[in-house]
Amino acid sequence: MNELEIIEKIRSTFEVKDYPLTDDVAYLSNKWAYKVDMLVKSTDVPEGMSGYQLGRKSVVAVLSDLSTKGVTAKFMMLSFAFPEGINNEYIIEILKGIKEMTNKYKITLIGGDVNKANDLIIDCIIIGKYKRKVLRSGARVGDKVYVVGDFGLTTIGLDYLINKKEINNEKLKFFALKAVYEPDPQVNFNIDAINSGYITASMDSSDGLAYTLNEIAEQSKVKIIVNNYPMSEEIKKLISLEGRDPLKDALYGGEEYQMVFTVNPKKESFLQRLAKKHNVKIYNIGTVVKGKGVYLSNGDKVEKKGWVFTF
Amino acid sequence: MNELEIIEKIRSTFEVKDYPLTDDVAYLSNKWAYKVDMLVKSTDVPEGMSGYQLGRKSVVAVLSDLSTKGVTAKFMMLSFAFPEGINNEYIIEILKGIKEMTNKYKITLIGGDVNKANDLIIDCIIIGKYKRKVLRSGARVGDKVYVVGDFGLTTIGLDYLINKKEINNEKLKFFALKAVYEPDPQVNFNIDAINSGYITASMDSSDGLAYTLNEIAEQSKVKIIVNNYPMSEEIKKLISLEGRDPLKDALYGGEEYQMVFTVNPKKESFLQRLAKKHNVKIYNIGTVVKGKGVYLSNGDKVEKKGWVFTF
Repeated sequence: MNELEIIEKIRSTFEVKDYPLTDDVAYLSNKWAYKVDMLVKSTDVPEGMSGYQLGRKSVVAVLSDLSTKGVTAKFMMLSFAFPEGINNEYIIEILKGIKEMTNKYKITLIGGDVNKANDLIIDCIIIGKYKRKVLRSGARVGDKVYVVGDFGLTTIGLDYLINKKEINNEKLKFFALKAVYEPDPQVNFNIDAINSGYITASMDSSDGLAYTLNEIAEQSKVKIIVNNYPMSEEIKKLISLEGRDPLKDALYGGEEYQMVFTVNPKKESFLQRLAKKHNVKIYNIGTVVKGKGVYLSNGDKVEKKGWVFTF
Repeated sequence: MNELEIIEKIRSTFEVKDYPLTDDVAYLSNKWAYKVDMLVKSTDVPEGMSGYQLGRKSVVAVLSDLSTKGVTAKFMMLSFAFPEGINNEYIIEILKGIKEMTNKYKITLIGGDVNKANDLIIDCIIIGKYKRKVLRSGARVGDKVYVVGDFGLTTIGLDYLINKKEINNEKLKFFALKAVYEPDPQVNFNIDAINSGYITASMDSSDGLAYTLNEIAEQSKVKIIVNNYPMSEEIKKLISLEGRDPLKDALYGGEEYQMVFTVNPKKESFLQRLAKKHNVKIYNIGTVVKGKGVYLSNGDKVEKKGWVFTF
């Protein structure tokens, strides 16, 4: 079985009516919500990532999902497994990275576990409060599709680190590596945006923008047309100068930890003001229409490709 | 750093006043409590344990801790990491073992994560409700010390599996392997006992009885005298016939997943009736006196030894 088949097996074994296992977070009826995400060094940590960055990322991944669902983080539990021979400084750096995030977002550690394994594992569990639910399935015909932040950078950064594909422009290289090593979800903006009530559907982008858009389209039973670049003019230009296709890099990347959302066009200006207030960049990249699937405005299909583990 | 030093580092980095990281579970003020426990195949799973038993154990470890603290399990999250090459049947067996426990105790899975790693990991998070808190620190002079179930069997079973130490008696071998492969915390008894209000201190025994008693004595600032065997006459005899010391096996084992508790002597008979009602064996193994440390009635010191990972 691959990852998706295992998840299906888990769903068919355990899922009950009121607690769907399909969305990003688990909302309980008492306004508490839960999310867990496991970071595994051998699969989730690219070359050159420091202990500090690794610790930071283990929390960021969960905060991104939660904030995309309007959940304010309150409590955390951490399960660690460390391998034989790990050095003390590295562990201390990891804790520093975690601590920066718990300080920044006022999260209290309430429990955890320490183990030994043949890999380095951080399983981060966060418990938070929400005021309003938002699902992947709420996008309506006529809604605008938005992303938070610049897409495409992680694709280039990971291509450099994993496939040794050189980045010629130093500025782009800096942005791309920063995006990979220190992803920065716009937690406070995301939560305020959800709480405004104007977001109709939302999802964390970390499985890739193409995957995320397809998932929203499928769950909402609508078609999405992508007609704009999810990045600044500057980054678009820098990526083009590398001889790459900026839109392809933006669609088929992943690991951005940013929010993708849909909004009623009457409320666009409100959200743009909110983004300005939070000093956050948001990009309108498309519209929701009748039909199914995700397409570029030239008619090309955007495939539901994402990273899937095989065992 | 070893395991305990890492835990100390985590405490000094993250601990805040109202949320001590020293006890078995995290009690929040709203009557919800939380516990996470990570099972790692390379360190926690003895030879010959089936996928079903492994899945079962990943839940049992958490239920034991929670029930020992009076917490009724309600919701669960599961983070898995599977290694390359794992076969489908094995995964399905693991899920069956987990399912048996979620069915038996009516626990709803609300979320999780599936990953790939160089080890097999199940991180089990359970969220439950409690009516009354009980800590490690509540034992009073004059209290009686009790354990639930027979101790010593896991020591013999693990000695057989890890150190290849033969077990001559077939009945004892059956009991010992069953204790290792299918630990069976008395969840319902434990919770009813805590809710009675008569338990003054309690702790899960899985780090070893000697460690557990020392921990209760330390946190409660009392001395514990062990004056009785934590096992049935039959098991005591079977262990003796192997040429082993039953008390030593009982004290310096671990992985029993049973409750160790202290109770006011006036309430002993109530708890004995409660145990009978639940068809559970409990043994009075000692008393709480003034002083510190844990001692046998002959004056021998019971050392605070337990399993600690080194890295």
